[in-house]
Amino acid sequence: MPKLERDGEVFVLHLDADDENRFHPDRLSALEALLDEVEAAEGPRALVTAGSGKFWCTGLDLDWLFAHGDQYAPYLERVHALLARTLASPVVTVAALNGHTFAAGAMWALAHDFRVMRADRGFFCLPEVDLDLPFQTGMSDLVRARLTPQTAHEAMTTGHRYGGEQALAAAVVDATAGADELLAAAVELARPLAAKSKPVRGRIKETLYRETLAALRAPVTD
Amino acid sequence: MPKLERDGEVFVLHLDADDENRFHPDRLSALEALLDEVEAAEGPRALVTAGSGKFWCTGLDLDWLFAHGDQYAPYLERVHALLARTLASPVVTVAALNGHTFAAGAMWALAHDFRVMRADRGFFCLPEVDLDLPFQTGMSDLVRARLTPQTAHEAMTTGHRYGGEQALAAAVVDATAGADELLAAAVELARPLAAKSKPVRGRIKETLYRETLAALRAPVTD
Amino acid sequence: MPKLERDGEVFVLHLDADDENRFHPDRLSALEALLDEVEAAEGPRALVTAGSGKFWCTGLDLDWLFAHGDQYAPYLERVHALLARTLASPVVTVAALNGHTFAAGAMWALAHDFRVMRADRGFFCLPEVDLDLPFQTGMSDLVRARLTPQTAHEAMTTGHRYGGEQALAAAVVDATAGADELLAAAVELARPLAAKSKPVRGRIKETLYRETLAALRAPVTD
Repeated sequence: MPKLERDGEVFVLHLDADDENRFHPDRLSALEALLDEVEAAEGPRALVTAGSGKFWCTGLDLDWLFAHGDQYAPYLERVHALLARTLASPVVTVAALNGHTFAAGAMWALAHDFRVMRADRGFFCLPEVDLDLPFQTGMSDLVRARLTPQTAHEAMTTGHRYGGEQALAAAVVDATAGADELLAAAVELARPLAAKSKPVRGRIKETLYRETLAALRAPVTD
Repeated sequence: MPKLERDGEVFVLHLDADDENRFHPDRLSALEALLDEVEAAEGPRALVTAGSGKFWCTGLDLDWLFAHGDQYAPYLERVHALLARTLASPVVTVAALNGHTFAAGAMWALAHDFRVMRADRGFFCLPEVDLDLPFQTGMSDLVRARLTPQTAHEAMTTGHRYGGEQALAAAVVDATAGADELLAAAVELARPLAAKSKPVRGRIKETLYRETLAALRAPVTD
Repeated sequence: MPKLERDGEVFVLHLDADDENRFHPDRLSALEALLDEVEAAEGPRALVTAGSGKFWCTGLDLDWLFAHGDQYAPYLERVHALLARTLASPVVTVAALNGHTFAAGAMWALAHDFRVMRADRGFFCLPEVDLDLPFQTGMSDLVRARLTPQTAHEAMTTGHRYGGEQALAAAVVDATAGADELLAAAVELARPLAAKSKPVRGRIKETLYRETLAALRAPVTD
């Protein structure tokens, strides 16, 4: 289960897991509670989310979902809510992409303010086209709102796997680092921005992404 | 008239013409039939569109249009339909830009998934501002949806002519090649993506470009 | 007060001031009259706007606004009108950013067609997050319409200060120049485009930016 540590003004949310950090409902509950804790904290603060081993997060827990088909809409709405709250958060967020960042995991990374990716291993990938899974409108709009047209098109319609340096060149991530320096690089990117995590920042993001947030907050109907 | 050849999983649509490959109604009929054929084909497939000589495509057939003013709206709607079906196509499309790619021809190139451009000759250009022709809303939205803000602005409001290397730097095209290697480069870009040409890809593009497609599919009223 | 000079087909609007070129109502009146003069001029023409000393423009006159709180909505609407008319102008506009370009001043710079920035001094900055000032919707949409997603996000949610070379790399500006060559560089960028300043160019921009212009032209309600 994920756990939260504090390094001065920077919270580090460790996504520890041996199951690719998929969004199992129990993990979503844990993430929601930890994000509540970070948002409720007072004063300057920033959040770094860090995976472990080969994975950062690979998205929906399809095994669970196939076993609980009647929970399809509420489950997706809960994932959408995670994406929306991250995108709209007043708290500065940096994803430390230590490894594979796939599908709804990749979307969650894009909902963060910034991304630092391990340079030599791991891929950022939207494999939906290969899985015969169309994007929900809100998820599609999130990707479109965060990437250039050329990159959104390639990522969404071909399932291209971006390694660290290619992700940097395509502005999918903001920086790369070696495996051993990744977490420190993310923390040092976040720390000087901690004072920006004020209510006005949430209002600015609500306006900037208002159509995307409305789509992510709409009921799931298909 | 255009003709279709098949190279394994890659269809090559040759836009052969000695009239700049303008969208004469007879050419539109031929293109529509060949695109129908590619879309109806089963299994992995991709499409490369290749011009000849100095031109890839220079857009509307203004001579024909001026002689058939009463056909203005249905003619434009037919060109819009070509742009929309290409943009929304589940089939992976690569434009091999061997030469001048102008106006509605440039828009058709942008509706493809990818563009490879000859490095040393030919221009990508939206000359509408010089011709005193405003953009139809759907055409304007198509360009805006496919280029960065800086490039869309320059291309649409100044009629700037982009040579191959400049088009690559501005992300108007995805690659460049020498004249003799252009078609092969486009085919080799398309071939490994042929397996992506599935119905889900059409659904992904319908969501990604839904506002642009709605504008292109709207009746022409001015 | 600003004044207008003519260098062949290029008008140069000097924003001379010793008060950071803030949008005091008297300055807005002067700017509006000079822009009217440029737009009313016939034939090929382009406009370069040039600050002086350390400042290009730092935006709203907050001292005046705090002293005239009852004028909040009409004052903001007047600034929005300046942004909208610049964004929609058929006349080619180039901002010669000699120094600090902040807040609504930065937005006005983005409403120009092109920006040339001094390479060694001065910053482009949206400090709203630091000032606890959310963006008006129209202003937010203007920034979003002119920058890539990555840059709009960083600029609007962190108040990052972009020096000349960083602004160029982020496509916030189109070119940089040394302090002594800046005005000449802006004029030489504008001059060959003067013939593009035709009514059709205004129509093209009205379509390209129609949602942004509608937001800038809407009444200010909060």
